[in-house]
Amino acid sequence: MSHNTYTSFTDLNTLGEFGLIEALTKDHPAQQPTSIKSVGDDAAVIKNINEVTVVSTDMLVEGIHFDLMYTPLKHLGYKSVVINLSDIFAMNAEPSQITVSVAISSKYSLEAMKELYEGIYTACKMYKVDLVGGDTTSSPKGMVICVTAIGQASEADLVYRNGAKKGDIICVTGDLGASYLGLQILEREKQVYLAHPGVQPELENNQYLIERQLKPEAQAGAVAYFRKNKVKPTSMIDISDGLASELIHICRQSGTGAFIEEGKVPIHPDTERTAIDFNLDPITCALHGGEDYELLFTIDEKDLDKIRFMPEVFIIGEITDEGDGIKLHTTGGNVHDISAQGWNHFKENS
Amino acid sequence: MSHNTYTSFTDLNTLGEFGLIEALTKDHPAQQPTSIKSVGDDAAVIKNINEVTVVSTDMLVEGIHFDLMYTPLKHLGYKSVVINLSDIFAMNAEPSQITVSVAISSKYSLEAMKELYEGIYTACKMYKVDLVGGDTTSSPKGMVICVTAIGQASEADLVYRNGAKKGDIICVTGDLGASYLGLQILEREKQVYLAHPGVQPELENNQYLIERQLKPEAQAGAVAYFRKNKVKPTSMIDISDGLASELIHICRQSGTGAFIEEGKVPIHPDTERTAIDFNLDPITCALHGGEDYELLFTIDEKDLDKIRFMPEVFIIGEITDEGDGIKLHTTGGNVHDISAQGWNHFKENS
Repeated sequence: MSHNTYTSFTDLNTLGEFGLIEALTKDHPAQQPTSIKSVGDDAAVIKNINEVTVVSTDMLVEGIHFDLMYTPLKHLGYKSVVINLSDIFAMNAEPSQITVSVAISSKYSLEAMKELYEGIYTACKMYKVDLVGGDTTSSPKGMVICVTAIGQASEADLVYRNGAKKGDIICVTGDLGASYLGLQILEREKQVYLAHPGVQPELENNQYLIERQLKPEAQAGAVAYFRKNKVKPTSMIDISDGLASELIHICRQSGTGAFIEEGKVPIHPDTERTAIDFNLDPITCALHGGEDYELLFTIDEKDLDKIRFMPEVFIIGEITDEGDGIKLHTTGGNVHDISAQGWNHFKENS
Repeated sequence: MSHNTYTSFTDLNTLGEFGLIEALTKDHPAQQPTSIKSVGDDAAVIKNINEVTVVSTDMLVEGIHFDLMYTPLKHLGYKSVVINLSDIFAMNAEPSQITVSVAISSKYSLEAMKELYEGIYTACKMYKVDLVGGDTTSSPKGMVICVTAIGQASEADLVYRNGAKKGDIICVTGDLGASYLGLQILEREKQVYLAHPGVQPELENNQYLIERQLKPEAQAGAVAYFRKNKVKPTSMIDISDGLASELIHICRQSGTGAFIEEGKVPIHPDTERTAIDFNLDPITCALHGGEDYELLFTIDEKDLDKIRFMPEVFIIGEITDEGDGIKLHTTGGNVHDISAQGWNHFKENS
């Protein structure tokens, strides 16, 4: 476990804002043909090559969304981009540009900022998007990162949250609950470290869970699959707050109910094992943990064949009438209401 | 002078993020025909009706960019939008949408957030833009606002910083230095108030300067004038860091020099008077004060006739060869180098 204070190198005050932007962006010219003007003018310029532009933005605040005690800056940069790209994919669109604004206190050096931007640019390369603008500024205390992701699409290809209808199949693109348990492990080891600074943290056996927390990926493959196989989900959302909360969004906006089969919800064996270690129910972690960045989507029953060979897809339930409510069918044969609890629930009880 | 803590009303924790967004945005449906999908899905959707999209983003941090002791939240919301729209106008484009992300500590009530958003929506109405997305999140301490402004334009209409050439006329759209002195007055009255809480602040005689600081406007009229009169500046930038700094950007990116005539730089009589009160040179305030949000632009000599009847325009100098440097011709007949000092200079010396 390392402290990411990076106080010993080049002082940011000696560079100034323009020097800093220049130092961070100069080796990364824009690659996307639609990026006409990148960093360096009053605004970025993007060529419109499709019918609509989709835009999403998220703000990450130190002490709320990340803890620099166990979050390497490179991972933080990567994740801050990925969670925004995830929102663009959730519209069934493809991201092409991002802007990044960062507020940092003067305790950070140029080297620390370069680590953060190395993560940002690694995500840009991975997902083929350009960093075309942003802002770097001081903060009296703590770090704040605000990323805006931009993509383009045909209007007819867009998938909203409100298109689900009775009989549609509910799918997710990957296993759930791992990121939440990764966070619990990091928090536990932080407490151990704070109490006994000499003790090595036990992270080796928990690589999968920790990576899901620190370095999540956005589901570019699913959207590419939909396009290639000419299948369009009836509704879609990315799982940032937890399966339960996202399913409720879809049902509310679509005016439907839904049921989820507990036994069908994909949970990684490490998630299963670690949930039990923490005295938590694995399905609760999957429903309410959040930060999975998998896609939750519904498809018309007649399209079931078209997703049969989708590499990562799990059918977990079905859309029902609004009056039927939003239910979990447990493996024990019971039926429970699904309510939104998300992070706050866990924070209050952990 | 009032403390904007707003601690006594509806607790934000009781609402949750979705309740808060709903409460803040419900009375403001999108008006722009290009706003296809506003707040409420994974991303906003904007119809592409012109060749390019222009995007600009800025982050405002409490304690760095604003002091809530003398900044009403409504003004803060208004200003945070305006300074981003200003960047879109500086491209000779027109803004149509914004996204707003806000991080706030739990000390703020729903009523406080509503004041902030009232200012945001007032700016939206004034400049005919839609708030189509964003993020609201907690902060351990202090407020951070990140606005992204989006507009569309024909590629041929865009004006960059790099198009100035020798012989071009240098213009600004309004008087400079007022906002900086407005800030000095607010800071002075804050110190008086802190030392003697019973004393009424002296703000009445300084209405103009304070309004330039707390409620700046973006230069929509200038861009409309250019379009109507078929004149296109050769380069343009908005004055956020100060005339000197912005002129240097234009000259560096265009590969030119420039001279400014001190006697031609527009300075409001209140700025003049107050600069002297503060023992500052008015031209220094105009060159380095910043936050004027006027447009600095250059036009080809042959277009001089076309801006003759432009309602607010001041010709202040001329573009020269790069080797001639960037100079101020003083009213006393001297020639000085213009260097970038911007805010930091003032902060260190005040």
